[in-house]
Amino acid sequence: MSDLFHSFSEAREIARRVRLGEWKAVAVVEESLRYVQSTNTQFNAFTYVSEDRALHEAEQIDRKVARGEDPGTMAGVPFAVKNLFDIEGQVTLAGSKINREDAPATVDATLIHKMNAAGAVLLGGLNMGEYAYDFTGENVHYGPSRNPHDLSRMTGGSSGGSGAAVAGGMVPVALGSDTNGSIRVPSSLCGIFGLKPTYGRLSRAGTFPFCPSLDHVGPMARNVMDLAMAYDVLQGYDPKDPVSAQQECELTSDGLDDGIADLKIALAGGYFRTQATEQAQQAVQKVIDCLGVTQEIEIASVAQARAAAYLITNAESSNLHLGRLRQYAADYDPDVRDRMLAGALLPASWVIQAQRFRSYYRREMQMVFAKFDLLIAPATPMTAPLIGQRSMELDGHSMLVRPHLGLYTQPLSFIGLPVVVVPVSTPGAMPIGVQIIAAPWQEKKALRVARYLELFGFTSPLPQNQKENPYELC
Amino acid sequence: MSDLFHSFSEAREIARRVRLGEWKAVAVVEESLRYVQSTNTQFNAFTYVSEDRALHEAEQIDRKVARGEDPGTMAGVPFAVKNLFDIEGQVTLAGSKINREDAPATVDATLIHKMNAAGAVLLGGLNMGEYAYDFTGENVHYGPSRNPHDLSRMTGGSSGGSGAAVAGGMVPVALGSDTNGSIRVPSSLCGIFGLKPTYGRLSRAGTFPFCPSLDHVGPMARNVMDLAMAYDVLQGYDPKDPVSAQQECELTSDGLDDGIADLKIALAGGYFRTQATEQAQQAVQKVIDCLGVTQEIEIASVAQARAAAYLITNAESSNLHLGRLRQYAADYDPDVRDRMLAGALLPASWVIQAQRFRSYYRREMQMVFAKFDLLIAPATPMTAPLIGQRSMELDGHSMLVRPHLGLYTQPLSFIGLPVVVVPVSTPGAMPIGVQIIAAPWQEKKALRVARYLELFGFTSPLPQNQKENPYELC
Repeated sequence: MSDLFHSFSEAREIARRVRLGEWKAVAVVEESLRYVQSTNTQFNAFTYVSEDRALHEAEQIDRKVARGEDPGTMAGVPFAVKNLFDIEGQVTLAGSKINREDAPATVDATLIHKMNAAGAVLLGGLNMGEYAYDFTGENVHYGPSRNPHDLSRMTGGSSGGSGAAVAGGMVPVALGSDTNGSIRVPSSLCGIFGLKPTYGRLSRAGTFPFCPSLDHVGPMARNVMDLAMAYDVLQGYDPKDPVSAQQECELTSDGLDDGIADLKIALAGGYFRTQATEQAQQAVQKVIDCLGVTQEIEIASVAQARAAAYLITNAESSNLHLGRLRQYAADYDPDVRDRMLAGALLPASWVIQAQRFRSYYRREMQMVFAKFDLLIAPATPMTAPLIGQRSMELDGHSMLVRPHLGLYTQPLSFIGLPVVVVPVSTPGAMPIGVQIIAAPWQEKKALRVARYLELFGFTSPLPQNQKENPYELC
Repeated sequence: MSDLFHSFSEAREIARRVRLGEWKAVAVVEESLRYVQSTNTQFNAFTYVSEDRALHEAEQIDRKVARGEDPGTMAGVPFAVKNLFDIEGQVTLAGSKINREDAPATVDATLIHKMNAAGAVLLGGLNMGEYAYDFTGENVHYGPSRNPHDLSRMTGGSSGGSGAAVAGGMVPVALGSDTNGSIRVPSSLCGIFGLKPTYGRLSRAGTFPFCPSLDHVGPMARNVMDLAMAYDVLQGYDPKDPVSAQQECELTSDGLDDGIADLKIALAGGYFRTQATEQAQQAVQKVIDCLGVTQEIEIASVAQARAAAYLITNAESSNLHLGRLRQYAADYDPDVRDRMLAGALLPASWVIQAQRFRSYYRREMQMVFAKFDLLIAPATPMTAPLIGQRSMELDGHSMLVRPHLGLYTQPLSFIGLPVVVVPVSTPGAMPIGVQIIAAPWQEKKALRVARYLELFGFTSPLPQNQKENPYELC
């Protein structure tokens, strides 16, 4: 890596140099904006670039540094957010056409506010699957976000723009949301690190909801230290999110290099060992070989957990959309609309049964975590499909791409477990991710394992044909 | 009142004398069982009398007293439970015919265990509305429980046997359950005190569920000190009930006579001032006159709260009953079955909307309780209807008795607020209750007001033509 600022510079390195006054935040942001403008036609990651705001924020940082004030732990670090986060003065699209008619947001989402308060600089809003009901990163209104490793391929979704922006070097950190896998699927297909924290850990205030009892938000980054740095900035109770937990924050930026000797790790067996392509199986094998994992644990009722997550997602989201469905049915992505309409017809009894199952499954998983600290599972059954691809071959069966990319993520978010996705790359092949799954509130254990793996070479691959674009900043 | 033991003796008096050895627990229980046997043909309150067990328990108490051991705060106090509580060795009927085929319970419900541990003696199981889906106390399989103040009238339900047993002097304390009003409605119609505690306060472990997200259990008694004494015995976290709260117990038996000078009390206006008969209005007026309440507060969206409680009750209960409905539809009370079948057809979206409304309504009520400690409202819109009566006149409209007896109770249990019902009696008329409503976990404030009212003459009336049946015990 170059000593100069470049489009793949680490957030930690940017903040360190900006804090020292070696790099100007304004220069970092100007170069970043230039890179965003020049690459967005390929990646289709940004739907809105907040140029003026970003430059203004960067000037404030430089002024603080000049005055000897603390500009924050993430001073000058560019970031961007999935466009379901409220940005003051902007309409919150949530990937839709319908929302264009909404009034602009009057305040930033809580997590944008926290990033700004730590000195990070917002570059804009990112493309996403319509209303987050998506695993592909495609969007009928704004076009598909494109995988920086192969522009003909999907980013995964629904935080597809977040995946593309981070993997493509546009920003070192992006925020996404994950209801059934929407951070983890694009992290896997784009070959980056992603954290879906424990349900209730990070505030969703000021984000457009999809399915409130399953919605999570979290960071995505190209390395573990940047992911942890952002996560630490984002933590904290927020009375504006009704499910925000008053759980103590455990800062993760320190202590990630302590090794993993004390951690009991198992391979998730059964369901998590079926339906995967060879690439996904090999990725898991590489991870468990590196970690020295020898035990495999079969988890009961995982397929039911996924089915129950489907039902709750379908019913809750269609309830939120009923008014829009009645008025603007023709303005939805037809795939999303048809799911929503189906959800509006579900009998309550099915959903209540799903909620009862959720309590049971949570208790079952508690017993697993009484024996193990962490579980390892694939993040997606396959590497990135082609854009427009509707079906895929799994275990000899043709299956629909759109729902089945979430095969391994959905049963975990269903009970709010924290998960870090670690990228596994093979030269000449598309990257794919592996899930490091922890007990509730044990994000740090998952991050420690991710860091351990990173030090052993499980790093975010640089897209082929992408240059580091080094600039001398001063 | 006589100095001798009689069928209307106070629990506190029984325990005091049994602890001193002045009265033998066996003698108390024998006389109580005799009275139960002689009056049950009228009241139809007991569906099962646990004679052998009661005598055995009483013998243990007497033995402890003889040995100088502590026999418990409720030593020798007879009690009985709604027949949805598990009694070891008995089938838990929950008011149904269908459950007769179930295996007998292998352990007592948690609350029976707690009463026994405090020295109280179980006399048996009490009649109830089928599967608790009832406000009348009628039962097509076991016959209606009958109001001790007028045997041609309803007890109210679904804890109808509990109301009749306490009001009729069969036991000083009974346990009931309350999902939408099933403790408060019979307390009102039978002229006794009843406590529906905060949701999650008392353990439901070992009770047959009706609607888990709304089910509460609690005590009913003829005076406030007995009610508080039982409540204190029943309190405490129980890991066997998944919603049991780890809230600290606030013992209420002491300090109830401290007056009410520090409490801000308001009359619940709007919805709670409509649809009541003159008797219900007068009862509320007597209570607020006695308490010196001058402020009236209008609470928003109460009718919606009741509608939402209906939807959730209907959907959750029918989900629990789906298997039975498929196999034994003909064995249900047709009124209950038809509700259940309707519940099985509800769209999920309605129930999710009801749950969203619940969150909103809880926040609205929190703001009310930021200004006031307690609210006063009628418990039922009318005194006890005739057994078999299907409709009643409210505000000039003919309404169905069965659902509308819960008009004022349903919107409060919907968000788990604690309520004490206080009886208001008028010579020559049927009694009726008034609700003292507190913020979550503030049962003691409601009990203090109930005690204050009791000292001013709001007492449980003795049924006409019922004798105190005094016995010399030694």
